[in-house]
Amino acid sequence: MQIKDWGEEEIVAYLREHFHARPPVVGIGDDCAILPGGMLIKTDGLLEGIHFIKEQIPPQELGYKLIAVNVSDIASKGGSPQYALLTMALPPSTDSAWLKEVITGIHLACEKWEIQLIGGDTDGSKRDLYFNLMLIGTSPHVKFRHEAKEGDLICVTHYLGDSGGGLRVLQENLAGYEDLVKAHFHPEPSPAEGIWLSKQNGVHAMMDISDGLDIDLNRLIRASKCGALVELSKLPLSSPLLALCEKQSWDPIPFALTGGEDYCLLLTVDKNSYEQISKTFFAEFGHPLFAIGEIRGKKRPIQYEQLGKAISLELKTYDHFNS
Amino acid sequence: MQIKDWGEEEIVAYLREHFHARPPVVGIGDDCAILPGGMLIKTDGLLEGIHFIKEQIPPQELGYKLIAVNVSDIASKGGSPQYALLTMALPPSTDSAWLKEVITGIHLACEKWEIQLIGGDTDGSKRDLYFNLMLIGTSPHVKFRHEAKEGDLICVTHYLGDSGGGLRVLQENLAGYEDLVKAHFHPEPSPAEGIWLSKQNGVHAMMDISDGLDIDLNRLIRASKCGALVELSKLPLSSPLLALCEKQSWDPIPFALTGGEDYCLLLTVDKNSYEQISKTFFAEFGHPLFAIGEIRGKKRPIQYEQLGKAISLELKTYDHFNS
Repeated sequence: MQIKDWGEEEIVAYLREHFHARPPVVGIGDDCAILPGGMLIKTDGLLEGIHFIKEQIPPQELGYKLIAVNVSDIASKGGSPQYALLTMALPPSTDSAWLKEVITGIHLACEKWEIQLIGGDTDGSKRDLYFNLMLIGTSPHVKFRHEAKEGDLICVTHYLGDSGGGLRVLQENLAGYEDLVKAHFHPEPSPAEGIWLSKQNGVHAMMDISDGLDIDLNRLIRASKCGALVELSKLPLSSPLLALCEKQSWDPIPFALTGGEDYCLLLTVDKNSYEQISKTFFAEFGHPLFAIGEIRGKKRPIQYEQLGKAISLELKTYDHFNS
Repeated sequence: MQIKDWGEEEIVAYLREHFHARPPVVGIGDDCAILPGGMLIKTDGLLEGIHFIKEQIPPQELGYKLIAVNVSDIASKGGSPQYALLTMALPPSTDSAWLKEVITGIHLACEKWEIQLIGGDTDGSKRDLYFNLMLIGTSPHVKFRHEAKEGDLICVTHYLGDSGGGLRVLQENLAGYEDLVKAHFHPEPSPAEGIWLSKQNGVHAMMDISDGLDIDLNRLIRASKCGALVELSKLPLSSPLLALCEKQSWDPIPFALTGGEDYCLLLTVDKNSYEQISKTFFAEFGHPLFAIGEIRGKKRPIQYEQLGKAISLELKTYDHFNS
C-alpha cells in the first residue's frame, strides 16, 4: 500500500499508538506537545511545491509565514512563543539574495513576536526547498482540544476563508483583491488573544484553524468525544471575500469551511459565560468573538445547518498526500 | 550568487550575525542550543539523496540513525536525551510497509535511550523523502566547544573512520566488512560517556564528531580561539578499517580525518588531569580515551604531524552544497 492510500490521519494515529507520552507530558494529538511547567513545543514546515510556489510568494513573506504558522499553534494553547530552531534544506543553485530575503522575513517575524532564534540545521537538498521551524513557548493556563463540553458555543476569533480566497485569486491570476492575497501570504495569529482566552474559565477547548474549519473542528470534536452543529449563516465572512465571490459567482461557504490557513482560534465556550467573555473580548481586541454553532451529543462528523435546516455538504478537503 | 558558492559555514555565520540569543541562552554555534536550566535542544535531519540512498539503507537503520545522530549532539554537551519531535515529508507513492519499518527503527532507538516521542509533523513531498528530528535533553554540567585551553590534550572516545570506511565499502560494492557497514548504518553515541566526562573539571571543551575530525576540530579551535597539533600516528584506527585499507591499498588516514559520521566525542583535557581521567574512563567504559594531539597557540587550521614531523595534507572535506 502506498501512503497516499494509507492517509495522513492514519499515519498520525499509527504514530500515536506506538509512542506514548508519560503524563504529565502531553504528546501527539494536540496543536503542540506540552511538557511539565506549561512548556509548549511545535514544529511545522513549508515545502516547495506542497505549501508554496517559489515563483509566487515573495521570499520575505515566506520567511514571515514560516514563523507565523507555528506562532498560531503556540497561541492556540494560550502560550507566548520564545525560542525557535530553523531547519533549511536548499538546492545548491538557490540564489543567495533570495535566501537573504527569506531570512529577513524570519527576522521581522521574530522581532514582532519577540522570539529568539537559537539554532537549527542547514543542509543541501537535491531538488526542492524545504524550511522547517521548531517553536518553543510557555503557557501558564494551557487549553486543550479535548475539553469541549456538550452545550458549549463554538467560536472563532476572525473571518474565515480569506486566505483560501487569496490562494484562489493567485491560482486564477485575478487582478486586485490585495487584502485576500495578503491574508494568504501574511497570516496574523494573535498570541495576545490566545493568552487572554486561556485565562477564562468559561473557555473549555481551544485550537487553531490551519487546515480549514471543517477538518479542524472535526479534530476537536473527535478529541473531545462529542459532536457539533454549525450554522452556516453565522460563519464570519469578510467583505473582500464576499466581493470576490459575488463578482466570480462563487459560493463563499467552501472557502470558509475548507480554504484553510486561517490561523485564527477555534474554541468552545460555556454557554453561560459567552456573553460576558465576548463583551470583554470585544473591548480588549476591538473585534467580535464569533459564535458559529454549538457542541452537541456524540454524533460525528459535524452537522451543518442553514438557517436552522440541516443540509449536507460535499466538501473537498485538503490531504497532504492527495493534493 | 548561488548558495553553493556562498557556502554552508557562511550561511550559518550570516544567521549567527542576524539572530542573537540573550544570555544565559546559548544560540547558534555549538552542538545544541542551551536554555536556562541546562535544557539542550538539537535538530538534525536525513534527506534522501543527500544523507541516504533509499535502496541502500535498511529502513529500520534509517529510523534508528535519525535518532542516534541527534543523541550524539546531546551527549556531547553532557546531556541525557528526553523528548523528540519527528517531522516527515513523504512522497505519496512511499510504501507504507517501508515507512512502518522506519518507524520501528525510531521506536527501538527511543526505547534504547529512553526518549519520549511527543510530536512532530507529517507532510507530503513532491519527490524526495525527508526526515527531521528535534531532540530535547538536559545536562547539569554543560561542556562547550569554546573552552579549550592552550596545552590541553585533544582526545576522542572511539576509533575514527569506521563509518567512512563502511560508506566506501557500500559505494564500491565490496563483499564483507560488515563491522564497517554497521558502523555507518548504526552509530553508537554514548550519553553515558558524555555525562561522565562533563562532570570532570579537567575536561574543558567537548563536542561530537559528525562531519569528520578535521572539520569538527577546526570548528572547536575556531570557537576556542586557539590552534591544534594532531599527531597522525596516534589516531585510533580499528582493525576492520586497517584490514580494508591494506587489502585495497588505501591510506586509512583520510577516513579517520574526513570520513565523517563517527558520532563519538571530541574533547580537550587539562594535561595534568589526563592520566587520572583516562584511567577512570577506561575502568568505567572498558575502552581508552585516546589522546591524539594538543591544543596550541592561535595558529589555524589544525597542524598535522607524522611521528613528530610536520606534514601538509590535501583533504577533501564534506560540504552539503558541493557533494
